[in-house]
Amino acid sequence: MKMDDFKPLNTLISFNEAMEILLSHVKGVDEWEIVSLDEAGGRVLSEEIIAQIDVPHFDRSAMDGYAVKAEDTYGASLQNPVILELAGSVFPGDIPEGSVEKRKCFKVSTGAMIPEGADSVVVIEETEIIEGKVFVYKPVFPGANITKRGADIKKGSIVLKEGCYLTPSKIGAIASLGLKEIKVYRKPKIAVIPTGKEIITPGETLVMGKVYNINSFTLSALIKENGCIPVVFSLCPDEEKELKKKLEQALNCDLIVIIGGSSVGERDIVGNVLSEMGEILFHGIAVKPGKPTLGALINGKIVLGMPGHPTSCLSNGYLILIPILRRIAKLPPKNFQTIKGKISKRISVTIGRMQFLSVKLNGEEVIPVFKESGTITSMAEADGYIEIPGNKELVERGEEVEVKLF
Amino acid sequence: MKMDDFKPLNTLISFNEAMEILLSHVKGVDEWEIVSLDEAGGRVLSEEIIAQIDVPHFDRSAMDGYAVKAEDTYGASLQNPVILELAGSVFPGDIPEGSVEKRKCFKVSTGAMIPEGADSVVVIEETEIIEGKVFVYKPVFPGANITKRGADIKKGSIVLKEGCYLTPSKIGAIASLGLKEIKVYRKPKIAVIPTGKEIITPGETLVMGKVYNINSFTLSALIKENGCIPVVFSLCPDEEKELKKKLEQALNCDLIVIIGGSSVGERDIVGNVLSEMGEILFHGIAVKPGKPTLGALINGKIVLGMPGHPTSCLSNGYLILIPILRRIAKLPPKNFQTIKGKISKRISVTIGRMQFLSVKLNGEEVIPVFKESGTITSMAEADGYIEIPGNKELVERGEEVEVKLF
Repeated sequence: MKMDDFKPLNTLISFNEAMEILLSHVKGVDEWEIVSLDEAGGRVLSEEIIAQIDVPHFDRSAMDGYAVKAEDTYGASLQNPVILELAGSVFPGDIPEGSVEKRKCFKVSTGAMIPEGADSVVVIEETEIIEGKVFVYKPVFPGANITKRGADIKKGSIVLKEGCYLTPSKIGAIASLGLKEIKVYRKPKIAVIPTGKEIITPGETLVMGKVYNINSFTLSALIKENGCIPVVFSLCPDEEKELKKKLEQALNCDLIVIIGGSSVGERDIVGNVLSEMGEILFHGIAVKPGKPTLGALINGKIVLGMPGHPTSCLSNGYLILIPILRRIAKLPPKNFQTIKGKISKRISVTIGRMQFLSVKLNGEEVIPVFKESGTITSMAEADGYIEIPGNKELVERGEEVEVKLF
Repeated sequence: MKMDDFKPLNTLISFNEAMEILLSHVKGVDEWEIVSLDEAGGRVLSEEIIAQIDVPHFDRSAMDGYAVKAEDTYGASLQNPVILELAGSVFPGDIPEGSVEKRKCFKVSTGAMIPEGADSVVVIEETEIIEGKVFVYKPVFPGANITKRGADIKKGSIVLKEGCYLTPSKIGAIASLGLKEIKVYRKPKIAVIPTGKEIITPGETLVMGKVYNINSFTLSALIKENGCIPVVFSLCPDEEKELKKKLEQALNCDLIVIIGGSSVGERDIVGNVLSEMGEILFHGIAVKPGKPTLGALINGKIVLGMPGHPTSCLSNGYLILIPILRRIAKLPPKNFQTIKGKISKRISVTIGRMQFLSVKLNGEEVIPVFKESGTITSMAEADGYIEIPGNKELVERGEEVEVKLF
């Protein structure tokens, strides 16, 4: 496949087809690194966690109260309390001194080790101390209010599986086993190569005919949000030699994104370079915006050529890049929060192209804010987007739509 | 309010009441810091961004094609193309040489500056080059396929407001203005003070009667996920003097969370210290788990006393801490992704206490996994949770529930 001068994109593939092709070439990261538990949130476990201890590793009081022999409490009521002798107390972290004899009890706090002889705990609310004696107003059954050794986690059990996404509670489970470090998959590195002679970097002085680089910043932020590390290259002029050099450097990353230059203009050299260095999978996807998107492989590594229009580039980021990033990082699919609403005006759709329509919300009302793909405000003024399938001709005013929130 | 020895919590306030009290004392951070644009994702803008330039700051081609005088194309059709002379070309970043005369055109690429004399662009797909001449097959109206100067952002307009949460697209809007650094609110610092003589730190050798610190790790992960910085203190033994010392150090943080010691046991000294150093707002919330939760103020700063039970502590984290953290950080409320499903078994509810029930998902089926509040697996084996309001007695098997995913 060779890009000719100003050749229109005449063989679009569907969005689903493009994703199927791309995802079939994704390789999840295999390499792991060791992180301390307090840095592990949001990472993906690369090992199986097997409990080396019981949690808790002793019978423990689940409540503040009195450790008793359950049979001593049978028949207790408000009218006829059972009266027990207080023989000792255990606080969390202590080892009990002595054991609980018949008609006696130990005071225990939540988390305290249950003394020998006791088989249950009467909660403080069901008791009263009167003249040094413990009045029990309600019977307990054996085992009541005791967390048995291993009740939380049994020694030898698999606590977390390889590939587990580490939320706060999973980190808690690891902490409960006493582990301070774990193995997680390294974060994928994503090369971002901005092209185009017209692009200058924020902070530089603006000159006529040039525009500031937007796409490196939007995609970098999106890459970080999805558990990967952006490796942003300096601006690549529209020269094949320069682009080749950058691509060679970028091959140590897990995915390469080239921005701009994959359209059909005379200086669009991305297609040429990619077909020379590797294999072009497709050029042109039936999405709107975002049509001039290119998928390629170099040494089995996915290279995405994104359109330079800020809205096209970022909508591609949401539709195409996020699923790929998360698959490489071994993260679960992104769950966009969605809101249902009614569209504020009729939208006519380009038949055959899935449409990404950026919208803002005003209560129940869903207001399209798309101006044109060349603007960034088409995205920046939006709260989220709706996807309109390629087989739909019109979205009628007032029709219910589902908005995925950014 | 003074904590007595083993005094039961007998004046619970409702969850809504507790949140109202706490949120009324929240102060959002005021201090800002400067961050470079590539570090700004997920932060909150502390300044108003006003455009100092037009974006784009010249009339620009939105497509690959030919810059023409629209009137020259009127009447063009496939049968009767208009034939124009190619008088030059402009690539993105270039300044056009010359201007477009009548019945002539300039080749322009997407993003190129429109040469003088032209008022529209005919897209490449509607043209053909035959023997060096440009055949135009379809008329264009004036302004077609041109992005006018300032069409994206007008100089002098407010682009982003103070308090704006910085998503990828908002960062793109800032980049388009050429700014490389912006002011954002600093991340709040959240003191986490674990208490309890029974607690040891992961990595240490386990001894009888002790348990590993879970809560500092779960809350830290949750604090980070919500845009704040955890400042985790070393373990505080159950001594008033030690706790006071740590609280004094913690007062330079934006919020203080004490874990454990706010129950009613003999050594629960949190209530005593807080009523001495400040003012107790409430002690005991009608939630399950998480009842023995304490709210206090020291010098106007919120102090939360969380129960030491890992599930209670973390469920409080989701219900109580997250809204407060995000309010302090000036972040938008957390949008949990929700899934509807049918509960797998009947749940009887403690009337009057809002219940946080951790659940896992099996297709449509929502399976409660709560064992007891003292276990971490009650949370770690869950995919999310459901909230059961305090006025509900039962959730029937098969009843539809909404699961908030972790």
